[in-house]
Amino acid sequence: MANAIPSRSENYSEWYNELVKRADLAENSAVRGCMVIKPYGFSIWEKMQRALDDMFKETGHMNAYFPLFIPKSFLSKEASHVEGFAKECAVVTHYRLKNAPDGSGVIVDPDAKLDEELIVRPTSETVIWSTYKNWIQSYRDLPLLINQWANVVRWEMRTRLFLRTTEFLWQEGHTAHATSDEAMAETRQMLEVYARFAEEWAAIPVIKGYKTANERFAGAEETLCIEAMMQDGKALQAGTSHYLGQNFAKAFDVKFQSKAGTLEYVWGTSWGVSTRLMGALVMAHSDDSGLVLPPKLAPIQVVIIPIYRSEEQLAQIFEKVKEISAGLRKKGISVKFDDSDANKPGWKFAEYELRGVPVRLAMGARDLENGTVEVARRDTKEKMTVQLEGIVDRIEALLEDIQRNIYDKALAFRTANTHRVDDYAEFKQVLDEKGGFILAHWDGTPETEERIKEETKATIRCIPYNAPEEEGKCILTGRPSTKRVLFARAY
Amino acid sequence: MANAIPSRSENYSEWYNELVKRADLAENSAVRGCMVIKPYGFSIWEKMQRALDDMFKETGHMNAYFPLFIPKSFLSKEASHVEGFAKECAVVTHYRLKNAPDGSGVIVDPDAKLDEELIVRPTSETVIWSTYKNWIQSYRDLPLLINQWANVVRWEMRTRLFLRTTEFLWQEGHTAHATSDEAMAETRQMLEVYARFAEEWAAIPVIKGYKTANERFAGAEETLCIEAMMQDGKALQAGTSHYLGQNFAKAFDVKFQSKAGTLEYVWGTSWGVSTRLMGALVMAHSDDSGLVLPPKLAPIQVVIIPIYRSEEQLAQIFEKVKEISAGLRKKGISVKFDDSDANKPGWKFAEYELRGVPVRLAMGARDLENGTVEVARRDTKEKMTVQLEGIVDRIEALLEDIQRNIYDKALAFRTANTHRVDDYAEFKQVLDEKGGFILAHWDGTPETEERIKEETKATIRCIPYNAPEEEGKCILTGRPSTKRVLFARAY
Ligand SMILES: [Zn+2]
Ligand SMILES: [Zn+2]
Repeated sequence: MANAIPSRSENYSEWYNELVKRADLAENSAVRGCMVIKPYGFSIWEKMQRALDDMFKETGHMNAYFPLFIPKSFLSKEASHVEGFAKECAVVTHYRLKNAPDGSGVIVDPDAKLDEELIVRPTSETVIWSTYKNWIQSYRDLPLLINQWANVVRWEMRTRLFLRTTEFLWQEGHTAHATSDEAMAETRQMLEVYARFAEEWAAIPVIKGYKTANERFAGAEETLCIEAMMQDGKALQAGTSHYLGQNFAKAFDVKFQSKAGTLEYVWGTSWGVSTRLMGALVMAHSDDSGLVLPPKLAPIQVVIIPIYRSEEQLAQIFEKVKEISAGLRKKGISVKFDDSDANKPGWKFAEYELRGVPVRLAMGARDLENGTVEVARRDTKEKMTVQLEGIVDRIEALLEDIQRNIYDKALAFRTANTHRVDDYAEFKQVLDEKGGFILAHWDGTPETEERIKEETKATIRCIPYNAPEEEGKCILTGRPSTKRVLFARAY
Repeated sequence: MANAIPSRSENYSEWYNELVKRADLAENSAVRGCMVIKPYGFSIWEKMQRALDDMFKETGHMNAYFPLFIPKSFLSKEASHVEGFAKECAVVTHYRLKNAPDGSGVIVDPDAKLDEELIVRPTSETVIWSTYKNWIQSYRDLPLLINQWANVVRWEMRTRLFLRTTEFLWQEGHTAHATSDEAMAETRQMLEVYARFAEEWAAIPVIKGYKTANERFAGAEETLCIEAMMQDGKALQAGTSHYLGQNFAKAFDVKFQSKAGTLEYVWGTSWGVSTRLMGALVMAHSDDSGLVLPPKLAPIQVVIIPIYRSEEQLAQIFEKVKEISAGLRKKGISVKFDDSDANKPGWKFAEYELRGVPVRLAMGARDLENGTVEVARRDTKEKMTVQLEGIVDRIEALLEDIQRNIYDKALAFRTANTHRVDDYAEFKQVLDEKGGFILAHWDGTPETEERIKEETKATIRCIPYNAPEEEGKCILTGRPSTKRVLFARAY
């Protein structure tokens, strides 16, 4: 570890960028806008994948794989989809290189031009619905419940590790149903899955709600989302689930014979979360010393560091550690024993703090004598010396406590930074001085939403599921409103 | 299920193509040369991934993710690599589309031309070694043991599901070491991992060996491979592991400070297996009724089919089945109970045969009376009626027996179809009349290898690890040779 990372209060944005790099999560690659996800970062992503994948399968979905490339003409088939997705994307125009005549390297072979350009998928609705056309004939083929884990590309001018990159990893669920109700139930169910993942695994409390028409997915009739608050008070959309109605079925002519014998268009949904969740995880919990990882997503849950003056002492410590490690592993807890002599204990303490390892055990000569070990928790940085007797159960309970505490802290932060505001001057003032979420009345028109966005950079993150019916007046226009919506500046 | 698939003897090639589609493994997509991996096929691939990934991690590797795109100039940095990989590939030249002026859809925006074209990765050595340059400074940073699961694209004119597709899924390991010996040990270790996977999981016996210089990976100093025999006697390369020497380190200037303080180039390896393994799995074991899957890779290991005349009977059968299923699941065995009334039992029998489910249980009225169940194994198609008492242990043992039997059968087939040949006329005759593997002497020159390939379409699959030292004469030139090499026509 070299110098410390910048502090959050000093420069939140730099704190994030540096932390992502220094904790070995990701870095920029030689290809503009594309990131390298480093092994430590990837191992967190793998834990996210495993948890989500298990939930998808529990809810009856299967994985499949569809092509990376989309024929250009496919994008135009769904009118609003092309507006949303056909613009900033990677276009494959040729399929061969050849040696440059001057021997300087390779050049594109002009003879190998594609008849129709291929687009690197920005999302896969079009290629998937073109496939579903052949898979669906009868109501017996429905519901079709499929997910894919894939890379996608959306050309971005300004990128940021995990939060906005040209290439990113994600999962995209694409389902087909016989009825509108069933498709809507699926849309809601998958938002619940995302919310459960965010809260129970990533320890990030989220607000579930509906996107306004302006913010809907291109081609969707309804977009549900979960919104999380970062430590700078800004919102981050952590997952979306779209009710597609019959839009893609009509665009790709996907019909089925109903039980009654009629021929009908299929109803669809799509839903996704991405490596953006990695950014959310970092920004929601971490502190000026580095990552704070919820134990359920931490690649290493417990690190054990020996403090010794002789090889003999190290051997004695190792004897004790073996027992503890075996006991922890038996409970499915991941443990690392770091006895490398390249670095001093103090350096290691800082390094594992930087990497967000939830629990650190340190054992030295005095511990050997007393039958104790020093236990430090990453989230609160509390330390205490405890007896080895019963240590395994104690650590198991501690990990659960840390998971809960990280969530509680994030929830308390969100509560403290959520404001109910009733006039526009105050709205602007709160945004500039306090930030956070603002619950305010809105007249329901895209024009008002747009003007507020232009004037304040705050957007309507969602119309919360649980917003109570309440008489009020739009903060901008004063027109009547029946519920508050959630405003924030967002990532 | 509609008509039967073609038989192997009738048309092996058509048998394969139809089986892959009809068993719901994969199909061609709307994008030329790119396949859709269907849910059932993908669930087999997931089992392969899980088994391999566990082995990679047991041998100390971690996963990471590198960019999909490679700057064109990177490909030219390693001289032989560019020859091997820079030719047939997808080239991204633009990053934006715009609406066509005539309203006909979208067109490529000529203003959004990239300064340097990007290549969709055909393999990632170049982009990874350009990254390793920043990750490696000292011997303490070595070895670097990284794997990535990814999609790659190699433009193919003639494609075939799983065996040769423009886009395919694979894993690529890329490691860096302080010494040549260590890199060579890694190269060998990973070939052993692949061989173990092929034999213990996919039940496919393989020959381990060295590729000749002609057949080496572009940029490697040594390529190790495993070669498997398909049921038509042709060879299929099921995995490769490359010793890269210092080639990529030199191309990307990756040096490290040794313990002795000197600055040296790093030694590298790379190794990969792909969705081609799916093709090998199908072609090695399946029969005219459909897939034959080794239990360890079967998504459904046991299917239970009720044969009933009334709802009451079905309920009674279900009571018995519940117990069996619970017992099997407790042992980690996957079970499907198919009580759908859309299809008759006979149809279901054929359907699960087609899908290669290793064990089928059928239970009818007489079984209820007698406390029995009919057990059918997919590999031999044997059926017998057995007592329910002890059924769970019996099925567990049966699955192990099927796994072993499938392997033994493939091994016996390979043995029966491997020929030692000492003259060129016989060589050609064996190839045309019997096919299979031929162990023959070769003078060690690329010219001879090339001429044999041109004249017979047989290539040297490998120089087997275990080829005994033996005096002999090259089948083509009569020049002296010290060991037999493995010839075959190949996929
Ligand atoms: Zn307030
Ligand atoms: Zn023979």
